[in-house]
Amino acid sequence: MIKINLPELGKERVVIIGGGFAGLALALKLSKLNQYQVVLLDRNNYHQFQPLFYQVAMAGLEPSSIVFPFRKIFQKNKNIYIRITEVTKVNLEKKFLETSLGVCNFDHLVIATGADTNYFGNQKLESLAISMKTVSEALFLRNAILDDYEKALSTTDYEERQEFIDIVVVGGGPTGVEVAGALAEMREYVLPKDYPELDCREVDIWLVQGADSLLKGMSENASQKAYDFLEKMGVKIKLNTRVMNYDGGWVEMDDGSKIPAKKVIWAAGVKGAAPFGLPQEVMGNGNRVAVNEFNQVKGYENVYAIGDVATMVSEEFPYGHPQVAQVAIQQAKNLAFNLKKGLKNKNKHPFKYRDLGSMATIGRNKAVVDLPKFKFSGMFAWMVWLLVHLFQILGVRNKVIIFFNWVWNYLFYDQSLRLIIRPKINPRK
Amino acid sequence: MIKINLPELGKERVVIIGGGFAGLALALKLSKLNQYQVVLLDRNNYHQFQPLFYQVAMAGLEPSSIVFPFRKIFQKNKNIYIRITEVTKVNLEKKFLETSLGVCNFDHLVIATGADTNYFGNQKLESLAISMKTVSEALFLRNAILDDYEKALSTTDYEERQEFIDIVVVGGGPTGVEVAGALAEMREYVLPKDYPELDCREVDIWLVQGADSLLKGMSENASQKAYDFLEKMGVKIKLNTRVMNYDGGWVEMDDGSKIPAKKVIWAAGVKGAAPFGLPQEVMGNGNRVAVNEFNQVKGYENVYAIGDVATMVSEEFPYGHPQVAQVAIQQAKNLAFNLKKGLKNKNKHPFKYRDLGSMATIGRNKAVVDLPKFKFSGMFAWMVWLLVHLFQILGVRNKVIIFFNWVWNYLFYDQSLRLIIRPKINPRK
Repeated sequence: MIKINLPELGKERVVIIGGGFAGLALALKLSKLNQYQVVLLDRNNYHQFQPLFYQVAMAGLEPSSIVFPFRKIFQKNKNIYIRITEVTKVNLEKKFLETSLGVCNFDHLVIATGADTNYFGNQKLESLAISMKTVSEALFLRNAILDDYEKALSTTDYEERQEFIDIVVVGGGPTGVEVAGALAEMREYVLPKDYPELDCREVDIWLVQGADSLLKGMSENASQKAYDFLEKMGVKIKLNTRVMNYDGGWVEMDDGSKIPAKKVIWAAGVKGAAPFGLPQEVMGNGNRVAVNEFNQVKGYENVYAIGDVATMVSEEFPYGHPQVAQVAIQQAKNLAFNLKKGLKNKNKHPFKYRDLGSMATIGRNKAVVDLPKFKFSGMFAWMVWLLVHLFQILGVRNKVIIFFNWVWNYLFYDQSLRLIIRPKINPRK
Repeated sequence: MIKINLPELGKERVVIIGGGFAGLALALKLSKLNQYQVVLLDRNNYHQFQPLFYQVAMAGLEPSSIVFPFRKIFQKNKNIYIRITEVTKVNLEKKFLETSLGVCNFDHLVIATGADTNYFGNQKLESLAISMKTVSEALFLRNAILDDYEKALSTTDYEERQEFIDIVVVGGGPTGVEVAGALAEMREYVLPKDYPELDCREVDIWLVQGADSLLKGMSENASQKAYDFLEKMGVKIKLNTRVMNYDGGWVEMDDGSKIPAKKVIWAAGVKGAAPFGLPQEVMGNGNRVAVNEFNQVKGYENVYAIGDVATMVSEEFPYGHPQVAQVAIQQAKNLAFNLKKGLKNKNKHPFKYRDLGSMATIGRNKAVVDLPKFKFSGMFAWMVWLLVHLFQILGVRNKVIIFFNWVWNYLFYDQSLRLIIRPKINPRK
C-alpha cells in the first residue's frame, strides 16, 4: 500500500481530519508552534462557513464569499501540511489512516469530521429531499429552485405547476426558519419581476416543524417572534407535524395531510459524521464519538474528537453539547492549549462551554437574538446578526464583498445571482 | 408532439435562438416595441460575457460577475418570452423549431447561436483538451488547474509531477495570450505562497502558435509587445508550431517535439455553431450560415443569422467578418432597424462593419491596444482595457464587484477564488 507523500520531521505528528470550525481553529493554533508536525486532511480545498449556506441557496451570496481556500488561510503558517483527500478508514490501534492518497500514520489523531444530515433512517427522504450541509448542496438547491420556476412556465397543467413552484421546508430550527424567510422574500420581490407570466400568489412556502414551536433551542420570545415574522410574510407554518414520506411529488405528514412539491428542503436533523473504522465502544449518542472532558476518545490517550462529531456527556449536557460553531471553536482552543502543554501534564484544562447566545435572521431586515442577558428582535437584531456574521467571516476581501451584497440586497430588494450554472462533466475521467 | 407553452398574441412572432452578444442586443431592441412577439431561446438562463471567461478560469473572477440572468436583464421589457431550452432541430420550410420544451413555430427566425471550439477534426484533442467557450468550461478549467497542483504535492515521481504542473496553451490569439499571461502571474505570485512544498521553478507554461507571430489580427506592434511581455514573464512561446496530437499526458508538435502536460488549453480556433436541420445550401465557410448584406439566409426572406454563426462574404471580407463581439452587436442593431421598418421596405439598411479596434491584456497590469488611429501598450493600455471592459459589463452591481476584484488583485497580487467546488449530482434524476 502506498504512503501519503509527507516529510518525516522527527516531531510528533498531529493529524486533524476535517477543516470545519473545530479542525480549522485547532490547526491554526498548532501550526503556529513548532512542537508538532500538523497535518490537515479535508476532502475539499476550502473551509466552509455553514451559517450562510442558506444565502448561497437563495442566490444571495456566491460560494466564494463564504468559503475560504485552506492554502490561503495558512499562507503565513509554516508548520502545516494540507492534503485534499478522503479518509476512508481509521485504525486507532495501529495508529494510521487510509486515505485516497495513501496511508497516513499519526502520533495524535483529532477527529473533527462534523455532522451529516439525519434522515432518521428514511431512505426515500434521503434520496429525494435536498439538504444543505455543504456548499455544493446549497448550489444544487439554488439550481433546483430556479430550474423549477422555468419548468413551471412551460407547464399548462395546474397541479403539475403547483409541484414545481411550491416548496416544503422541513425543520423549524435556525436553518429552516432562515430558508423559509428567504424564500418568502424571493416570492415577494424577485418572482413578480422575473416571472411576470407566473402568478406568484400560487407559490406556497411551507415550514413543517415537529415540535410545538419554532427555534426550539432559543427563548420563548424568539420562537414567538420568528413565528409572527414568518406568518406575516405568508409562510404556511405547521407545528407539531412530522413529515412521514415523500415520493418526489407529494409530501405526506403524520396528520394524514399531503402537499404537492418537487422540492423538500430537509433541515430537520443532524447526526455525527464519524469516520469509518472506529470501534463500536467509542461511539456515543447520535453517531457521535464519546469523549471525556479533555475531548479524549474513550480508551485512547492520543485520539481526540472535537466539534459536532464529539459528544461530551455531563450532568448539564446529558446528550452532549449543542452542535453549533461556538462549541466547536471553544473545544478546539481548549485542546490546542492541552496539546501545547503536553500529554502527560497533570494540569490539563477540562472543557467548559461558555454560551455566547444565539440568533436567527428572517428575511432581508429582521432577526431574533438571544444573548445571555438580553433578548431582542426586529431590525436592530438584524443589524447585530449582520455585524456578528460579518465579523466571523475570514478575510477582508470577503467581508467587503458580503457587506456590499447585503447592502445592495437591502436597498434594492434583489438577489442578483440567479444563475443556473450546470457543471461541465470532466472529460478526463 | 407537444407545443411549447407560449401565448398566441396575433402578432408576428420573432424567435431568436441564442442570447449571446448578437441575440441579446436584438432581443433588447425588439422587446421595447410592440410590433412583434419576441421569443428568446437559450439553453442557459444567463447571458455570458465571453471576453472575461479566462479570468473565471484563472480564479480572478466569479462566474456571477460576468454572467447575467436573462430575466433580470429583461425585467423592464414587457414584450419578451424567455424559454430556457435546447433547440434540437430547425425546419425552415415549415417554419417551426423542435426544442426540449416542445415545438415552437415562428414567423421570423433569427439564428444567433454563436461559435463552438474548432478542433479541426482531431477527436483525441476534442476529448482531452480543455476549451473555454462557456463559463462552465472555464470553471472546469479552474478546478483542473487547482486539482492538479494538489495532485502534484502527492506525487514523488519527477516526470509525473511535471505532467501535473505544466500547462500547454494552444493558440496565440487574444484568449491564448491572456490565459498564458494569467498563468504566468499565478506561478509568480500565488503558487509560492500557496504551495511552499512545490518548486515553482519547475512549472512550465507553454504557448503554442501556428502562425509566425502572436495576436494575428492585431498590429505588428501589438504582436511584438505581447511576445515581449509574455517572454519576460517566463512563458515559453513556440511560433510556427502546430499541435498534432495529445494522449492526455504528452503533447506532440508538428516539429516532432513533445511536452508533458495533463492540461492542454485549446484556444486555437472556432467554428460556427449552426443548429441542426439547416439545408446544406445555406451553409457557408467554417460551419457558418451564409447571409446577404441584410443578414438574411440565402433563399429565406424571414430567416436571419447574425454574429459568429453568420458569414457575410464580401470583397473586403472574403471569409466573412471576424468572429468578435463588435460584429455581432452591430449586426443585431442593423437587423433590429430593418425588422422595425418591416420586411417589404425597400430602404432596408445593408450591414456595414465599423471596426472600433481591438485589445488584449497580459497579466495584472499590461495590455496592448489597437485603436483605428492609435496603437499603444503597457500600463496605460491596461487601464484602457479595464475601463472598456468595465463599461461593457451589464449592471451596476457587477461593475462594482469586478472593479473591486481587479483593484484588489492589482494591489495584493492575489486572486482569491481558488476553490475546487465539485458539483453535487442531481438526486432527482
